[in-house]
Amino acid sequence: MRNGRKYANKVKVAVLGAGSIGSLFGGYIALGGLPVTLIGREPHVRKIQLKGLTIKRTFDGKMIEVKENIHATTEYSEVKDADIVLVTVKAYDTASACECIKSYISDKHLIICLQNGYGVEKIAENVLNSGCEVVRAITSQAAQLACPGKVLHNGIGDTFIQKPSNMKHIDHLTILCKALHNQGITAEIIENITPMIWRKLVINAAINPLATIMNVKNGKLLSSKHLKEILDQVIAELHQLCKHSRILEISSGEMKDIVYRVINETSNNINSMLQDVKKGKKTEIDFILKPFVELSQKYNVKAPVITSLYNMIKFMEART
Amino acid sequence: MRNGRKYANKVKVAVLGAGSIGSLFGGYIALGGLPVTLIGREPHVRKIQLKGLTIKRTFDGKMIEVKENIHATTEYSEVKDADIVLVTVKAYDTASACECIKSYISDKHLIICLQNGYGVEKIAENVLNSGCEVVRAITSQAAQLACPGKVLHNGIGDTFIQKPSNMKHIDHLTILCKALHNQGITAEIIENITPMIWRKLVINAAINPLATIMNVKNGKLLSSKHLKEILDQVIAELHQLCKHSRILEISSGEMKDIVYRVINETSNNINSMLQDVKKGKKTEIDFILKPFVELSQKYNVKAPVITSLYNMIKFMEART
Repeated sequence: MRNGRKYANKVKVAVLGAGSIGSLFGGYIALGGLPVTLIGREPHVRKIQLKGLTIKRTFDGKMIEVKENIHATTEYSEVKDADIVLVTVKAYDTASACECIKSYISDKHLIICLQNGYGVEKIAENVLNSGCEVVRAITSQAAQLACPGKVLHNGIGDTFIQKPSNMKHIDHLTILCKALHNQGITAEIIENITPMIWRKLVINAAINPLATIMNVKNGKLLSSKHLKEILDQVIAELHQLCKHSRILEISSGEMKDIVYRVINETSNNINSMLQDVKKGKKTEIDFILKPFVELSQKYNVKAPVITSLYNMIKFMEART
Repeated sequence: MRNGRKYANKVKVAVLGAGSIGSLFGGYIALGGLPVTLIGREPHVRKIQLKGLTIKRTFDGKMIEVKENIHATTEYSEVKDADIVLVTVKAYDTASACECIKSYISDKHLIICLQNGYGVEKIAENVLNSGCEVVRAITSQAAQLACPGKVLHNGIGDTFIQKPSNMKHIDHLTILCKALHNQGITAEIIENITPMIWRKLVINAAINPLATIMNVKNGKLLSSKHLKEILDQVIAELHQLCKHSRILEISSGEMKDIVYRVINETSNNINSMLQDVKKGKKTEIDFILKPFVELSQKYNVKAPVITSLYNMIKFMEART
């Protein structure tokens, strides 16, 4: 158990849903000197309690043992002591996870939704509804849970966090970003995160459903001429939707470049949606592709391939 | 071996590629009293040589043993004696099968391409190039090879054969149709088979690729709301292509009705394309969906979902 006195003047961080991304950020923040409480599931929690957290960096081969400043629990009540709560559950689990912490949250808390998908911060805000401030963050860090107690850091990426309105929260968040920065992990506080969210959504919407339906690693979408033709059509439809709805100012060439670059950088990755389908789990399709299907309906801009991919994944989910 | 004298005055039929459909028609023609030579592969041929052909009618439970008038061989040279050659190989095997019989074919032969897919009769004509007459036929009879020597007759359907130009061939074909008719199998000789071919293509193009990619029996395309939405989009694109290219005069409602009816009638079927993919075999995609992709390019009518389904199947084929 943590010593309350020892951490009296430090910004305290809780991670709600300590899977791959949550454990990765929690681990680096603890290494950066702030006290971190990981709230997750057995047996991951038990392993960390016994041996600490291991971060294996697959891109440079470093193995990092995190034993200081880190604490793991299955108890939701432990968010109470935290100043900042990082929400890192799957998009579709946002509501239920927030219900579990709701009674321990007050206006002193800053809630950061560090998740994939459209609209998660609004879900959290609606459920918590307790004067706390909820902001959205988005990351391109690549992580994977290898086994209980061990997270693979597969690639360095950008992280953006929306600037809170409350001054105290800004101070706390600035300290958290410094702790990460000390470990070589950048996290930038920005005024308007919405375009960054849509940018990430476009990337996930272009890559994840198609690679999942075809059961391929990301790189295959460019190395197969047949899949590349479908990918290009998906990107063209996404661009039309962004253009008509004005949610994202980007040229079609730039959008193609971004998606191609991410595919090349992650060519050996099995994307999270395909991982979910392989495990027979629910996917984040309703938070990744559905927002675009809805834009298509709202602005009456046809997106037949996107809509078909959406329906295919929904059918695959219903079958599992 | 057949007795040449015995059959001296009869129309002789050879079936090139005696798989499910070839064996089914060959069997009924033999029952109808005409001498039939099935040209196929071991061990199907050997079994028929030893025990005759068995037709099991799954729709009425009848088991029919065909022992008279039927002869099976692996020798292509035996087409020589035939008056009519029924070509029943897969669309993509048409060229190679015709190469094998080429040297035994003369202007006395009527060649009937009783196959799925667009353009097979032109391939046969180009390869044979020997003064014989080549006509196209199309059938909705449902058959499946259960095991060597045994074909399942899964459903009665229409058969249409293009009227030959040569009078002698018309006479021979009329006799063949009568032999089938005696067994309760209708086969109609028509002046212009082209619309019937496109009609069948539309049905196969709507059902087979989608059911193959989603790995479902035909019925699922209507019972899942997600798959039905994709199916309706595919039918809408097919209808636009038929309308602009004027290959088939049909209203969109009528096209939908036809496709839905076939799905309902074959709801428990695993379509031939999915059967091929499951066996790791090549599919007939280039003879079923590619003609529509080509119409889309030729008439500059967008068909994004059809094109994507085409690319998905091509990718799946390349992977096996």
